[in-house]
Amino acid sequence: MAKPSYFYGIHAIDALLKYRPLDALSLFVQQGREGDSHVKDIIDQAQQNGISIQPTQKDKLTQLCGSPQHQGVVVHGRPLSFADEALLDTLSAQDHCLLLVLDQITDAHNFGACLRTAVAMGVDAVICPKHHAASLTPTVAKVSVGAAEMMPIISVTNLARTLAQIKSAGVFVFGTALDATAKPIHAADLTGKTAIIMGSEGEGMRRLTLESCDELVYIPMSGNEHGNLQSLNVSVATGMALYEVNRQRTLAAGQV
Amino acid sequence: MAKPSYFYGIHAIDALLKYRPLDALSLFVQQGREGDSHVKDIIDQAQQNGISIQPTQKDKLTQLCGSPQHQGVVVHGRPLSFADEALLDTLSAQDHCLLLVLDQITDAHNFGACLRTAVAMGVDAVICPKHHAASLTPTVAKVSVGAAEMMPIISVTNLARTLAQIKSAGVFVFGTALDATAKPIHAADLTGKTAIIMGSEGEGMRRLTLESCDELVYIPMSGNEHGNLQSLNVSVATGMALYEVNRQRTLAAGQV
Repeated sequence: MAKPSYFYGIHAIDALLKYRPLDALSLFVQQGREGDSHVKDIIDQAQQNGISIQPTQKDKLTQLCGSPQHQGVVVHGRPLSFADEALLDTLSAQDHCLLLVLDQITDAHNFGACLRTAVAMGVDAVICPKHHAASLTPTVAKVSVGAAEMMPIISVTNLARTLAQIKSAGVFVFGTALDATAKPIHAADLTGKTAIIMGSEGEGMRRLTLESCDELVYIPMSGNEHGNLQSLNVSVATGMALYEVNRQRTLAAGQV
Repeated sequence: MAKPSYFYGIHAIDALLKYRPLDALSLFVQQGREGDSHVKDIIDQAQQNGISIQPTQKDKLTQLCGSPQHQGVVVHGRPLSFADEALLDTLSAQDHCLLLVLDQITDAHNFGACLRTAVAMGVDAVICPKHHAASLTPTVAKVSVGAAEMMPIISVTNLARTLAQIKSAGVFVFGTALDATAKPIHAADLTGKTAIIMGSEGEGMRRLTLESCDELVYIPMSGNEHGNLQSLNVSVATGMALYEVNRQRTLAAGQV
């Protein structure tokens, strides 16, 4: 079992106490903020779960979690853990399974932001390679505003093998690329069992990952007067891709 | 004229030297990185424009710009300036004019991220209120990876009046909201003269801004098993909205 860490931020702590209260060892609350409504809810949750509560000075909280963005609450707790790879068998058997694959996203802020969007857009699980990926740190949990506690995240040793496995279960694997053979993402059918791979901002997908895709898609950009090949932040591009999935599924379900 | 500031980061500096070299007073380059290809390009640009170049230690660069994320280059230069409001008359006379209105986005990272996406998605200008908005700081320039230098940004005293003015020029104003009367954004026609308003994450649009909209739209999210009302980061939501504009325009132009 990995060492406990210091989690911080209202939404991250709220989700930690909601989804895995037994992993919280103690709660540190900034002196003078015990009455703020969000902080009060967190204190109530901690009390219901018999977690010790320690009034603490603001600067001491910053020191504990290593960030001034703690919003008055820090939990010393067991680290986030990855979901079991076997979950993929269950998920890929479901009709409208939606998997998000983050290939080589090493920045904690981008990773956390992708998780936040993934929960909002109905992703069933996030897959990332064991190497060259961000780990599930308290910063990821904070940026994800709690999504890291809700979303099953599966860390795999061999991404190409995992992709082959979900493909054999009928999941269609889309890679996002700027490749000339790619089609615009809105022209692809994303309503069935779908996995979408997002590559890193600098490098894109690795060759082996690329070769595992059933189809390559790109996000149309506007040629601009400056003639620059403008790039997108990976968490924004992930948002666009998941928006498109959700748009197609909303239409297919006849909801609009 | 406002005081010069310290700009930093490869893309931000590259765009500054490209779009307004006369505003650069001096370039500080990290000792030992003069040979990196991006840094070398920047040194060449500075030399062509007669800007003094000072080899500097890494820590000193961090101290100058107030961030360790300078990537080896810092420019002491005149601050970014807002575009003239009169530009709106010209833009709103154009057929497919696309304006992005950021109402009360005060966070520099979100603001910079929205600018980056706006350039990639063909936005003609960004409008923000003079008060309760992020200013055009070097951090915004850095996060925007240069987009802050390319995108006309118009700061207005009275947003409601500006919206009335572009509406009278035939621009259709969409507000993004979670309002029950809103329609899903994909069901709105975004191919004509369009302005899209994004509100702040916590508060949304202000009442007066909301009342200025021709139509309210929302980004469909997936109900998730956790029953949470999951929110989106404002720069991700902006990306989704601009993606939808671009998708519709690509289709309307018969490009796909």
